[in-house]
Amino acid sequence: MGLGMHLGAWRYREGAAADYLDPRYYTEIARIAEDAKLHAIFLADTLALSEEHLRRPNLGALDPVVVLATLASVTSKIGLVATMSTTFNEPYNLARRFASLDHLSGGRVGWNVVTTFVPDVAANFGSANLPAHDDRYRRAGEFVEVVAALWDSWAEDALIGDKESDRFADPALVRPIDHAGAHFAVRGPLTVPRSPQRRPVIFQAGASEDGRNLAARTADVVFTVQNTLEAAREFRADLRARAPRREVKVLPGVVPIIGATREDALRRKEELDRLAGDEELRKLALRVGVPVDALDPDRPLPLELVRANTDFNASHGFRAAAVRLTEEEGVTVRELLYRNGGGHLQIVGTAADVADTLAHWFTCGAADGFNLMIDVLPDGLTRFTEGVLPLLRARGLFHDDYPGATLRANLGLTQGAR
Amino acid sequence: MGLGMHLGAWRYREGAAADYLDPRYYTEIARIAEDAKLHAIFLADTLALSEEHLRRPNLGALDPVVVLATLASVTSKIGLVATMSTTFNEPYNLARRFASLDHLSGGRVGWNVVTTFVPDVAANFGSANLPAHDDRYRRAGEFVEVVAALWDSWAEDALIGDKESDRFADPALVRPIDHAGAHFAVRGPLTVPRSPQRRPVIFQAGASEDGRNLAARTADVVFTVQNTLEAAREFRADLRARAPRREVKVLPGVVPIIGATREDALRRKEELDRLAGDEELRKLALRVGVPVDALDPDRPLPLELVRANTDFNASHGFRAAAVRLTEEEGVTVRELLYRNGGGHLQIVGTAADVADTLAHWFTCGAADGFNLMIDVLPDGLTRFTEGVLPLLRARGLFHDDYPGATLRANLGLTQGAR
Repeated sequence: MGLGMHLGAWRYREGAAADYLDPRYYTEIARIAEDAKLHAIFLADTLALSEEHLRRPNLGALDPVVVLATLASVTSKIGLVATMSTTFNEPYNLARRFASLDHLSGGRVGWNVVTTFVPDVAANFGSANLPAHDDRYRRAGEFVEVVAALWDSWAEDALIGDKESDRFADPALVRPIDHAGAHFAVRGPLTVPRSPQRRPVIFQAGASEDGRNLAARTADVVFTVQNTLEAAREFRADLRARAPRREVKVLPGVVPIIGATREDALRRKEELDRLAGDEELRKLALRVGVPVDALDPDRPLPLELVRANTDFNASHGFRAAAVRLTEEEGVTVRELLYRNGGGHLQIVGTAADVADTLAHWFTCGAADGFNLMIDVLPDGLTRFTEGVLPLLRARGLFHDDYPGATLRANLGLTQGAR
Repeated sequence: MGLGMHLGAWRYREGAAADYLDPRYYTEIARIAEDAKLHAIFLADTLALSEEHLRRPNLGALDPVVVLATLASVTSKIGLVATMSTTFNEPYNLARRFASLDHLSGGRVGWNVVTTFVPDVAANFGSANLPAHDDRYRRAGEFVEVVAALWDSWAEDALIGDKESDRFADPALVRPIDHAGAHFAVRGPLTVPRSPQRRPVIFQAGASEDGRNLAARTADVVFTVQNTLEAAREFRADLRARAPRREVKVLPGVVPIIGATREDALRRKEELDRLAGDEELRKLALRVGVPVDALDPDRPLPLELVRANTDFNASHGFRAAAVRLTEEEGVTVRELLYRNGGGHLQIVGTAADVADTLAHWFTCGAADGFNLMIDVLPDGLTRFTEGVLPLLRARGLFHDDYPGATLRANLGLTQGAR
């Protein structure tokens, strides 16, 4: 979230740069989103201050569970999804934190499982280097397993609460998990009785082979970087094939840049890009794993150099998306930057343009929904809720009200409920 | 907090046993406390479900930072103090969590530093046994040092936020901490700019030699188990002598059991004790480190057996308080149980009785204030706020309104502000 997903957002918007530390800012965004009946607020998490975070507000600066907990008591329906790393947390603490928030929000919580690919983080947790990609994913697989077992450790009717007979809980229905694995030994049970969703909704965003397999095994929702319809369809089909017996919703990220006219949208986009300055080029270099001076705006990405980086340890999804655009369309770095650095799908246009694209992706089987990456907050969000949502509603593609009481129900997930 | 500090509270009160999982319950308590201008809400933390927690609601079942974050947005002045263990957390995560909540609450956060003495916890974090007492305290000392350095890693004016000149932060004013110690290696800086209090208020409750030294070195507020005026005065004098150049506020815990008359208070107490049943005896056995069947209600604590337990690894403060009452007053186990298991000072009487005792302890130098351990919530709290506070106000011993904007200011702590 930060102050908007565009790197120039903090300079473009009206409010102060320090708004990303202000509870009123978050409350305002949450209220707009809930009034519009959006499914959830989704927050990133950043466990290190990298150089780039001194040049613009950091998307995941504040602890996302803390932010969402403050929002739980000023909202009543919208989902609250926090990113949290399996590499730099303990499963008992994490399971307890999400179960606590699931109780206090009435069943509206989701956990976006990440393994953390930012190298700077390791040095804040006692290590010179991040664990290797496959080590992180092995730990993540076991971590999610432990957390799920802890969430299940109280049976539904374990809490009796009969004052008369002095029976608070039924010991037979509260069980240790006795997990002993390669990474964790956790006895359990959790301190927290079963929460409204039992298991908070599991989000994931792995695009690598390890990431897809973990998602297929454990995720309810997969958040993915896709910038062409065909690749998005393939990705969704691939994930569904890997999880034939599980429900998995696939949500590509999308960056809508909306104007009253296309020209107006283009002006917004160009002004944002101007304000972002060199930030986008630096970000692209990090995303594809090459030095920034290896990128010439007038030439395509140096794919040989990209592929030569065999130590690449960052997001496979972002790199693959940028490489794909370069290969398939032969775009220059400048064009890539213009198209959101080759990352999430960007739609620059009117509300009708955005609605058309989203509807098309949805009906073509490229998406079960979208993770909105709002360019500038709160302004870009109201452009979406006031402009795009009525058009989607008119086509029967978006609900008029929340259909259920929990995030799981509102996402149409029928499995995994209590 | 739970549903009240008395072990019989959940059966005595009107509400449901599951209220301790309900956000409306916490909001109600917070509003009563804030309307009365109490300084802070103080929450325990429990990282394991012990057998006893199947017999009554667990005081620290929910993650306390999550609970307090939900309360931050429905309160505006009251302090929010969460207990969190230095043995089972990472300093970077903890520093970031508290700094985040300090921002989102406008500077109302405190951290109660504990090393965790409950043996069951270790098994939820990969170890058969808790680290030894002195190991835990060495880690705690270094942990607090790292956290404080992280809180200081952004200078006050580091966040510039000048959109025009594209200067978000001043890199020269945001510094790595480069900590390399026996337990932690943490580079920093924190992802979060300096929060309103800079350093959330540090609470501590160590009563052992190690605990007192850590408190003298790092705590702003010391929460202590004291059940005689003389011992409380000695403790406070001892701590102040250990910290000659630092401000340290000493707050003994106090359990007021308030009735309209003394007879009424006694009836409340007896009914609570009856409802608690054997729980109090079991709790006392754990607190002093002997098997429950070694306790005979009609005889004093078996002090030889208590002293023979050289592996004692639980709260030194609780054990010392129970031993002291036994030694000084020769009380039986039954009398000890009646007096809150020899733990925190218990006052059974009218609001005037409670006000008299608190005023006496305060004016005698036994306390700078008190940590209220309310018997039954919310009822016991309103008895205190409506009965006792007006009497303390009439004597000029309690403020009519919050004097400051931050918890640090409201506690009268003048050092350590930004």
